[in-house]
Amino acid sequence: MTEQKATNVAWHEHNVTTTERTKLNGHKGAVLWFTGLSGCGKSTIANAVDRLLHDRGIHTYVLDGDNIRLGLNKNLSFSPDDRTENIRRIGEVAKLFADSATIVLTAFISPYKADRAQVRGIIGEGMFHEVLVDASLETCERRDPKGLYKKARTGEIKGFTGIDAPYEAPEAPELTLDSDKKGIEELANEVIAHLEANGLLSA
Amino acid sequence: MTEQKATNVAWHEHNVTTTERTKLNGHKGAVLWFTGLSGCGKSTIANAVDRLLHDRGIHTYVLDGDNIRLGLNKNLSFSPDDRTENIRRIGEVAKLFADSATIVLTAFISPYKADRAQVRGIIGEGMFHEVLVDASLETCERRDPKGLYKKARTGEIKGFTGIDAPYEAPEAPELTLDSDKKGIEELANEVIAHLEANGLLSA
Repeated sequence: MTEQKATNVAWHEHNVTTTERTKLNGHKGAVLWFTGLSGCGKSTIANAVDRLLHDRGIHTYVLDGDNIRLGLNKNLSFSPDDRTENIRRIGEVAKLFADSATIVLTAFISPYKADRAQVRGIIGEGMFHEVLVDASLETCERRDPKGLYKKARTGEIKGFTGIDAPYEAPEAPELTLDSDKKGIEELANEVIAHLEANGLLSA
Repeated sequence: MTEQKATNVAWHEHNVTTTERTKLNGHKGAVLWFTGLSGCGKSTIANAVDRLLHDRGIHTYVLDGDNIRLGLNKNLSFSPDDRTENIRRIGEVAKLFADSATIVLTAFISPYKADRAQVRGIIGEGMFHEVLVDASLETCERRDPKGLYKKARTGEIKGFTGIDAPYEAPEAPELTLDSDKKGIEELANEVIAHLEANGLLSA
């Protein structure tokens, strides 16, 4: 666990409550945490879900790896410690967005079970929805949308998930999407159905 | 400047644009960055403005020092380097909220000019509104709502802004609030007037 360094601090109840923000938005906040190998479709599916939700008037936001690494987490590398801190910070930001009654979609490989468990603890059960985007390494390497697998195979990139770094798949994700067999639209609709079934699209 | 460590990353245009999020919310995003001595009223005024905005149907969120230090920035101390990183991270998170068409109110002492200049650069002119909550050290020390000045005077707390660490006041803030002479309600309404004058309360 990350050590609490600052003392003389205490949690403030915001004057405007989460319940009031939920009422204004017309729906609850939640975190859809997409996890899976590079190239499995996390970002594409998250953005497709974002579009469907936005078009229904749901307040959403997408946090994805590349954007976060150019801003909040620009001072983090891909070392194991920095990967853990990367995921921790994203979890904390996702929690703030969810607290503001936003449905936040995060698209990060997030390969380590312990890191995702920490985020689940930060965000809380009921609010945190782990979505495994399940595609075989073969599928992802064949797609290779950014040419990263090729670089990992030649050793140009070290510590690449699935090649020379592990991917620890979730054992009990809230939702599993079969990205080997199904297309983006079908999978995005499965996510919407999950949100509806969990009562997250109403206040 | 913070070094960019990750390579192989590129900014993704979100499928749902900021313009679309602005249209959904009915107003633009912005950052109201309250700065001033401990006890000057930053948090109280920010929360009063938050209440006024929320009651008008504006989508808002408050980031304040204590809450952030229990979450996102729990691994930061009050050393100069960590104070800089504290403010940088908050600036990056505020930028994300503003990009989601939220008016975000931040309440941090943020004593260093260079740190606030960095945040202004991150968030961008027009989006970043520096609000100086101007109260004399005497006023703040008399109020001492958390008993921190007392601890700073006895040396129990080191590096306390205004006592044994500097406060570098902004030279050209977008707004200055006279917290020595005016009450919370009057000052909160001055902030609302500033937002209206800058066209931030409409889409």
